[in-house]
Amino acid sequence: MTIGIFDSGVGGLTVLKSLVEILPDESFIYLGDTARYPYGGKTPTTLARYAKESVNFLLKEGCSTLVVACNTLSSTVLDIIEQQSNCPVIGTIMPTAELILNDSSLTDIGIIGTRATVKSSAYNKAILHAKPNLKLRTVACPLFVPLVEEGITTGKIVDEVIDLYLKDWVADPPDALILGCTHYPLLTTSLYNYFSGKTKIINTAEAIAKKVANSTKISQVTDSSKQIKYFVTDSPEQFKIIGEIIMKVKDIKVEQVTLS
Amino acid sequence: MTIGIFDSGVGGLTVLKSLVEILPDESFIYLGDTARYPYGGKTPTTLARYAKESVNFLLKEGCSTLVVACNTLSSTVLDIIEQQSNCPVIGTIMPTAELILNDSSLTDIGIIGTRATVKSSAYNKAILHAKPNLKLRTVACPLFVPLVEEGITTGKIVDEVIDLYLKDWVADPPDALILGCTHYPLLTTSLYNYFSGKTKIINTAEAIAKKVANSTKISQVTDSSKQIKYFVTDSPEQFKIIGEIIMKVKDIKVEQVTLS
Repeated sequence: MTIGIFDSGVGGLTVLKSLVEILPDESFIYLGDTARYPYGGKTPTTLARYAKESVNFLLKEGCSTLVVACNTLSSTVLDIIEQQSNCPVIGTIMPTAELILNDSSLTDIGIIGTRATVKSSAYNKAILHAKPNLKLRTVACPLFVPLVEEGITTGKIVDEVIDLYLKDWVADPPDALILGCTHYPLLTTSLYNYFSGKTKIINTAEAIAKKVANSTKISQVTDSSKQIKYFVTDSPEQFKIIGEIIMKVKDIKVEQVTLS
Repeated sequence: MTIGIFDSGVGGLTVLKSLVEILPDESFIYLGDTARYPYGGKTPTTLARYAKESVNFLLKEGCSTLVVACNTLSSTVLDIIEQQSNCPVIGTIMPTAELILNDSSLTDIGIIGTRATVKSSAYNKAILHAKPNLKLRTVACPLFVPLVEEGITTGKIVDEVIDLYLKDWVADPPDALILGCTHYPLLTTSLYNYFSGKTKIINTAEAIAKKVANSTKISQVTDSSKQIKYFVTDSPEQFKIIGEIIMKVKDIKVEQVTLS
């Protein structure tokens, strides 16, 4: 089976990394729409158009399961993606919300994401539908994505930018923090330290990967032809640098394609 | 006469602001390709495609002069834009380079811009062609654009990000600093203070506006129907907030259009 994963840039690689660990016998195709990165400030109409093009590409490449490894797409246009695909589609919201809902010790939840994700209230709706009494707080953190895309994930600048967005929470930290953007797991250490270890950082990438493993018919035997292919819509250069750091492998091959 | 100005986002508004001051009797159409912002990390092939679509839009809207108010486009695909347009086309590189070349007191020049602009060496070529003995230093500053698009132009984070990119220059600052990106004029105060007032910050927006005034047949009489129109390719919301700060006017009307 080939699983297609797509995002605006390198962020979704955090999900791919978890998928490869949980499903070592599957093939994967990753598509980063870097020519139109970032998605976080864009409107649902524009996002729907971009998502359709990514879906068409991955289906043509033979994918039989799609992972929308982007919270912005998952929180705004997942229904459109599902309508367009004749195969299982897994987004980011439900797997992550279920992690919160299944842990009764968590009652005060922080949710951070891009402007589009926060505006959609997708996490709030998913959680409050099941547990209306949980305390939820949300903040959009638009500078986190450019920092991660530049490979800057720890240090003074990251700490200052975290403080810019989350200073109202530091005196009374939430029980758990949902990283509502697939770029944010790379900031886990900085965020954990910012809240002095008092806040559980929710590993969304792992939650999504587990959901994929449970939702799809996985290969029963080791497939010797299994492979991971990487595609981007702009120059592979910067993607390759950050991609190799996230995937912890050397010399990944990245091919450039045109979607529109 | 209607002058068309285009950029990836709000950055080119610094040029529009100078143009309106220098040419108060003309009409202007501004186009920000916010659905595909930012341009700085993208390749020339992708940029050429985006630029063609912006040019077509502005020509159809009746513009008779085009200002490429984006250093990334000007340094990579200006020739393609010129070939496509049957009217004067003014980019950012030559007007700015001429400011340096016409001031003999400036011998050590710092050039900052996006990754694409720096990689093109467009400023270096333009300056060294006329004065091969000038000392030039260049650094790409990819995080400056997202900071400006978020409206963050002074303060600790800006100072830290400036230090990240320019710390090698601070002990021995250049005579002048070319802001090789139309977003960067908004960081002028922070950059000036970072170099303790020792470095002349080149006002590229003003240089470009003066070039336009010299290159085109301007209106001889006050046109009562003159107007400024703003178009973007994604949601006008964030553009409007930053746009009103840059243009120093309230309640600008911004219309969303689709280019591709």
